[in-house]
Amino acid sequence: MTENEWIIYLKKYLHQNDEVLATHNEDCAVIRVDDRKYLLLTTDALVENVHFKLQYTDYYSLGVKLASSNLSDIAAMGGKPLWALLTLGSKEPLDYSWLDPLMEGLISTLELYGAKLVGGDTVRSETFFLNLSLIGETPKPILRSGARPGDSIFVSKELGLSSAFLRYIVDTPLEKVPAPVREAHLRPIPQVDLGLALREVANAAIDISDGLLLDLYRICLASNVSAEIELDQIPKSPYANIEEALSGGEDYALLFTVSDDNIEKLKKVSSELNTTVYYIGKIIEHENKLFLIDERGERKPLSPQGYDHFTFPLQPL
Amino acid sequence: MTENEWIIYLKKYLHQNDEVLATHNEDCAVIRVDDRKYLLLTTDALVENVHFKLQYTDYYSLGVKLASSNLSDIAAMGGKPLWALLTLGSKEPLDYSWLDPLMEGLISTLELYGAKLVGGDTVRSETFFLNLSLIGETPKPILRSGARPGDSIFVSKELGLSSAFLRYIVDTPLEKVPAPVREAHLRPIPQVDLGLALREVANAAIDISDGLLLDLYRICLASNVSAEIELDQIPKSPYANIEEALSGGEDYALLFTVSDDNIEKLKKVSSELNTTVYYIGKIIEHENKLFLIDERGERKPLSPQGYDHFTFPLQPL
Repeated sequence: MTENEWIIYLKKYLHQNDEVLATHNEDCAVIRVDDRKYLLLTTDALVENVHFKLQYTDYYSLGVKLASSNLSDIAAMGGKPLWALLTLGSKEPLDYSWLDPLMEGLISTLELYGAKLVGGDTVRSETFFLNLSLIGETPKPILRSGARPGDSIFVSKELGLSSAFLRYIVDTPLEKVPAPVREAHLRPIPQVDLGLALREVANAAIDISDGLLLDLYRICLASNVSAEIELDQIPKSPYANIEEALSGGEDYALLFTVSDDNIEKLKKVSSELNTTVYYIGKIIEHENKLFLIDERGERKPLSPQGYDHFTFPLQPL
Repeated sequence: MTENEWIIYLKKYLHQNDEVLATHNEDCAVIRVDDRKYLLLTTDALVENVHFKLQYTDYYSLGVKLASSNLSDIAAMGGKPLWALLTLGSKEPLDYSWLDPLMEGLISTLELYGAKLVGGDTVRSETFFLNLSLIGETPKPILRSGARPGDSIFVSKELGLSSAFLRYIVDTPLEKVPAPVREAHLRPIPQVDLGLALREVANAAIDISDGLLLDLYRICLASNVSAEIELDQIPKSPYANIEEALSGGEDYALLFTVSDDNIEKLKKVSSELNTTVYYIGKIIEHENKLFLIDERGERKPLSPQGYDHFTFPLQPL
C-alpha cells in the first residue's frame, strides 16, 4: 500500500459530519466549534533513521524540527497553535544529557509561536521516536479545496534546501555544509505569522512537506482544478538542484493560491511581515493535472513526484 | 531516570497558568475554556514487545486496547471523549490483512463511547508502534487532587486480571487462558459512563493503569493525604494473586474517593449503570503514605509499587 493508498484507505474510517469539516485531506483535522471558531488538530512523528540520523542531528535541533513540522501544519490552515502533547519512545534510559537540549529545542520553538506543551507519555521502544500532537484554532480555516481557476500560485520560501542537505551530508562533514542548508534541514522555520495573515488573502493553502509538485497536486485534487507553473519562476535555492526544488521534502514553506482581487493585500502582508513570496504560476481549469512551462516556453504535463514513506512515485488518487 | 523522575523533570517544561488547570500530574491535561467547559487532552502509545506481543495479540484487540487506554484517561476525569488522532509506525508495508482488523477494533471502540477518529500520520519505523491522542471535554473535571480525609475509597472492577494474563501466557496456550483473563488484557473496557456519572459524586479519581497501590499513591500525593486500605476488601479477581491485584497494571478500573455525603448518590449511580463498585478503605490525614490493614487487623505501612517503564520500584516524589 502506498502512502496515498493509505490516505484513501483511512478515509473510510475517518468521521465526517457537519461538525468535522475536514480530516485526511487537509494538513489538520478541522472541527467546527461555532461560526467563528474552529479547532485544528494535527499529529506528526519523527523516527530515528527514517526522519533523522543522530550522526548529524543534535538533540536541540530534533526538538525544533518536531515542533516545526507540526506548527507548519497549523500555519498552513491559518491557525494559531495552542496546546501540544509529546510522546517519547526511547530505548536508552532517559538522561539529562540529551533530554535537556531536546526539550529546550521543542519548548522554545513551540513558545516562539504561542504554543504550550501540556502533557506527554514516555515509553520504552527499540526504535527512538518522537510524536507530537498539536491543537490550534482559527476563526476561518484556509482549506486546500478553495483554489479557483485564475488564482495565482505562490510559495513563501526558496525551495530545495532541506533535501539538498541530504545530498551534501553524504560526503561533506556537517560543519562544512553551508549554513543555510544545515539550518533549513535541521532547524526549519514554520511560517505561523504568514499563515495567520493569509486567512484574509489566500483561497487555498498547504505546507510543503513532501515536495512542491506533490503538495501542489494535493491542492489540485482537493479543489478539482489543474495548475500550470513556470520553471523559471520557481525560487530554487542556489544550493539546491531543480529536482530538489520541485520534489524535495521538508521545506515547510507555505504554498497558496490568491485571486486577482487579493494580490494587493498579499503585497501588503508580505511587506508587513518582511516575508518574500514568490509567484510560480496559475491555477487553471481541467481535472487535477500539473503542467510545467519550461525555459523555452514549452508546456509539458508533469507527474507529481515527492516523498512517499512507502513507495515512489505517488499514484494519482 | 525513573518514569517518576521523568514526570518531575517534565514538570519544568510543562506550561501552567490560569487557562491550564493541570498537566503532568493528572490523567489528562486540563484546559479551561470557560466556567462550564474544560478540554481534556491525553496521549498514549503502545509499542510492540513492550506493551504487546503479536504472538498472542490479534490486531483487532490491539485497536481496542489503544482506544481503551486513552478512553480510560478521559473517563477518570469525568470527560466525554470526542476526537482522536492516530500515529502508526510500521516496518511492514501497510496491508489490509492486518490494517482492517486493527482499524475496526480502534474505531468500533472509540465510537462505542462517542469518540471519532479525525486524523492521523503514518511513518516507517523498525519498531511497530501506535500512538493515539484523544481530546475530550467536561463541564467539571474530576482531579486527583480532590481527595479529603474521611473519604471512602472505591474501585470499579475486580483487580489483577490483566497482569494475571502475563503469568498465564508464559506456559498456557492462548485459547486455554480463561476468557475473563484474556479479555481483560487484550480487550480492556474503559469505564466512560461511570466516569461521567462520578462528576457529581467523587472528590478525586484516577484510572488504574499502573497498579492499585501506585495509582492510589498518586491520589495521595496530589491531594496531600494518606490512604488506609483493607486487604480483605480488595476485589482481587479469583484468577489473580494478591500482588497482581495490588500492583498489576492495565486494569483500567477507576479508583475514586467519595465523601460520606455522597455515598447514597454513589449507590444510585452504581445501580443505574449496573456497575459494581468496591469499597477498599479510607482517605486519612498525614503526608502521602499508604497503609494496609491485613487479615489479622494489623496496620502496616506500604511502599507503593507498580509498573514503571524504566525502573522498579517507584521512588517517592
